[in-house]
Amino acid sequence: MDDITIQIARDENIGGKILIEGLPGVGQVGKLVAEHMIDELGAEKIAEITSIYFPPQVTINEEGITELAKNEIYRYETDGRAFLFLVGDFQSNSSEGHYLLSDAYLQLAQELGVQRVYTLGGYGVGHLVEDIRVLGAVNHPDLREEVEAQGVLFTRDEPGSGIIGASGLLLGLGSGYGIEGICLMGETSGYIVDPKSAHAVLQVLSRLIGLVVDETKLEERASEMEALFDKIRDMEEKRSQEELSYIG
Amino acid sequence: MDDITIQIARDENIGGKILIEGLPGVGQVGKLVAEHMIDELGAEKIAEITSIYFPPQVTINEEGITELAKNEIYRYETDGRAFLFLVGDFQSNSSEGHYLLSDAYLQLAQELGVQRVYTLGGYGVGHLVEDIRVLGAVNHPDLREEVEAQGVLFTRDEPGSGIIGASGLLLGLGSGYGIEGICLMGETSGYIVDPKSAHAVLQVLSRLIGLVVDETKLEERASEMEALFDKIRDMEEKRSQEELSYIG
Amino acid sequence: MDDITIQIARDENIGGKILIEGLPGVGQVGKLVAEHMIDELGAEKIAEITSIYFPPQVTINEEGITELAKNEIYRYETDGRAFLFLVGDFQSNSSEGHYLLSDAYLQLAQELGVQRVYTLGGYGVGHLVEDIRVLGAVNHPDLREEVEAQGVLFTRDEPGSGIIGASGLLLGLGSGYGIEGICLMGETSGYIVDPKSAHAVLQVLSRLIGLVVDETKLEERASEMEALFDKIRDMEEKRSQEELSYIG
Amino acid sequence: MDDITIQIARDENIGGKILIEGLPGVGQVGKLVAEHMIDELGAEKIAEITSIYFPPQVTINEEGITELAKNEIYRYETDGRAFLFLVGDFQSNSSEGHYLLSDAYLQLAQELGVQRVYTLGGYGVGHLVEDIRVLGAVNHPDLREEVEAQGVLFTRDEPGSGIIGASGLLLGLGSGYGIEGICLMGETSGYIVDPKSAHAVLQVLSRLIGLVVDETKLEERASEMEALFDKIRDMEEKRSQEELSYIG
Repeated sequence: MDDITIQIARDENIGGKILIEGLPGVGQVGKLVAEHMIDELGAEKIAEITSIYFPPQVTINEEGITELAKNEIYRYETDGRAFLFLVGDFQSNSSEGHYLLSDAYLQLAQELGVQRVYTLGGYGVGHLVEDIRVLGAVNHPDLREEVEAQGVLFTRDEPGSGIIGASGLLLGLGSGYGIEGICLMGETSGYIVDPKSAHAVLQVLSRLIGLVVDETKLEERASEMEALFDKIRDMEEKRSQEELSYIG
Repeated sequence: MDDITIQIARDENIGGKILIEGLPGVGQVGKLVAEHMIDELGAEKIAEITSIYFPPQVTINEEGITELAKNEIYRYETDGRAFLFLVGDFQSNSSEGHYLLSDAYLQLAQELGVQRVYTLGGYGVGHLVEDIRVLGAVNHPDLREEVEAQGVLFTRDEPGSGIIGASGLLLGLGSGYGIEGICLMGETSGYIVDPKSAHAVLQVLSRLIGLVVDETKLEERASEMEALFDKIRDMEEKRSQEELSYIG
Repeated sequence: MDDITIQIARDENIGGKILIEGLPGVGQVGKLVAEHMIDELGAEKIAEITSIYFPPQVTINEEGITELAKNEIYRYETDGRAFLFLVGDFQSNSSEGHYLLSDAYLQLAQELGVQRVYTLGGYGVGHLVEDIRVLGAVNHPDLREEVEAQGVLFTRDEPGSGIIGASGLLLGLGSGYGIEGICLMGETSGYIVDPKSAHAVLQVLSRLIGLVVDETKLEERASEMEALFDKIRDMEEKRSQEELSYIG
Repeated sequence: MDDITIQIARDENIGGKILIEGLPGVGQVGKLVAEHMIDELGAEKIAEITSIYFPPQVTINEEGITELAKNEIYRYETDGRAFLFLVGDFQSNSSEGHYLLSDAYLQLAQELGVQRVYTLGGYGVGHLVEDIRVLGAVNHPDLREEVEAQGVLFTRDEPGSGIIGASGLLLGLGSGYGIEGICLMGETSGYIVDPKSAHAVLQVLSRLIGLVVDETKLEERASEMEALFDKIRDMEEKRSQEELSYIG
């Protein structure tokens, strides 16, 4: 088996110039935005990524069918413009895996014709935020003006000095692939799945990509996601417990 | 040396269409059922699996002979039908190893002609259970009806949202090999080697595979296994202690 | 992607016989000395090293541009003598990675014509030091006399019994490349970025390589570095927090 | 660089039929016995093993020269019989590394003509022992009688159910190389470098290999080794401290 496996629908219409990443992270802001967009737009799944760098377990869906830990790519086309979405429940569980997975995402993106990636995340500030700012980072100086024009802040001291995981590495490694990278981070407490921060990020993203998405269900989705995370935390505890049962 | 080594008896009669997995896990339910079946039926060992993903140690058998950490495959044939059993004392000690070992088991299963794998385990509920339910998961929708017909429950919220280790991955990765996968999980407190939960799982499995196994010694085996685990926990503590002695 | 990637300016004048290493370590002594020299001398960057053994994150520079975690090599030439500097913010985050990165640095050094490497570091004593001693170690007996002549101490019991990370491995692995190795360690409390210890090490190094560097800004640089480290510690805490957000 | 590197004196007389392993472990019993024998017999070093699975650091010898973490093989010949000794300060720092290093030792042993390996260790009982027993394990049933004849005990319940690290794996993996393996374990509290346990093991080993070694300096060597370990523990603490200084 390969360390990373990509199963992709081999079809005529799977390409796209814009990739939007929303994997798990602080406040699940990126995940919430990307999955909300997929649902609202009715994007279609075109690829699945499984990997030995994901947790060694299967999930069980509502029909009782097991599914390997996986991330997914969806596609939505409108007026001749195609958008791809990278979403899922997992990031790597090792440092090396983070690099190798992000590189695999970029290779796939390149094959699909992606020219720009937007990575979405939360910027945890540790307290409730009234007026949520959206912070930005880019992987090429030419991109900054366009992003700032939509109200995104580039501050000297925030976010700390780095972006962790796929949201950062897709920009950092993306340069080597000639793919433009823009990271949008909504302020969030970091303690809950945060629909308000997601709202702020979605507003900015919508203007940047010229695509309007209904936001009325965002709050509802955040509640569902919170419930899901409770279950997942439960599973994680079970995993710790179970690993004690593996002799040796 | 290979990362995973399979030593197999190259013989005419080593194949089988059904593989039953009972590796260590919560309540040792799967291990207890599978090893009980092997003993009662007089199944014969046909393969041994050793791996750098197992703990770096040898066990000493009753004759004072060292044995590498290993898992084993046994075979039992009756009326022209052959059953294979995957048992042993170990699962991987790394996340990546879980995937690679499960994949190696499946490759071997495919070579042996396996068309369906039953993975057996416990579902830890954290308290004593009076009426033990057997929960199920399958890797293809077509399999569910057959399993439900034997009283196995497919509930929306249990087991949490996942199955960890080989019991899960053999189903998840099995799809890619075209191997049907059914996981049976007996409710158990999770604190002891649980013969009652094993009894419940064995009942269901017997009906599913059409093979009756005497159960009178199940309780006795559970006691022996509990004693073995005490020794193993002792060894684990020794390992922690010993590793402190490795300079550097 | 390669496990370690070296991007190097392919130019006529990139070689040098002397390599000075100042990666992060106790009291940031080596880092402070090497970066101070680069700034004062106006050395030019000739290579960048990125790796899956570095933390999986990007930093954001003052212009809002993301940068992969990387180490760098600078070059300064004067009177026909060329000096190379290996600096950066990272060492490996795994034991194996330490070896593989140090070996990659040495391969590159060999290609660049390096005949001798000076590795710089702090020797943490756990308390404030009045008269800072500079301790030494070499990878060949012939080197000792030259180093002792500049006041460097070779004591039987210090530094403990070893040198950890690149500062040690560049000497240990360097022998195999036929590269002379000298390690200079300034005593330091270990609690702060220590300009006084850096001063002591720089004094010795200047005499050894016959290159005078203005030291007036050393204290100032230490303060800046201390502020940077505060930010980095902040980021590290954020990383721990964020990893809790990666499901699975 | 290779994951494991063996530098061996290519000479006519480097072979030997007996290999004696004394790497670090509980009570440093095996290390003490093997290093004592090397010193008393005046055995000569014929090989050095370095590896990325050892700690990423160099030690500094009495002359101030750095040395990579390494294990060593010594050789002693008398009356046409040659004995090899595997000693050093390190075992692997990863589970996989334990397997890969032990396998590399065995490959080398096979090249050198080794037919039998004695692995030496302590069996920690957690309290002071008056009459020290020597416990045994072998990798082939035929070996047991010869070992029992020298007073070595094969008990059903000790040592726990396993032998950890090289002492165990050289036996377990040795079978595949056709190399006979005998493990001798002296009872020890596990809290100190234990010359009394080493004495008991050495007595048995001497009779088994037919080689008398003066024991008067065994106690003295234990004291020196204890002092060395104090230094090493100190270094380990320093390593933890230093790693906090590696940004990222």
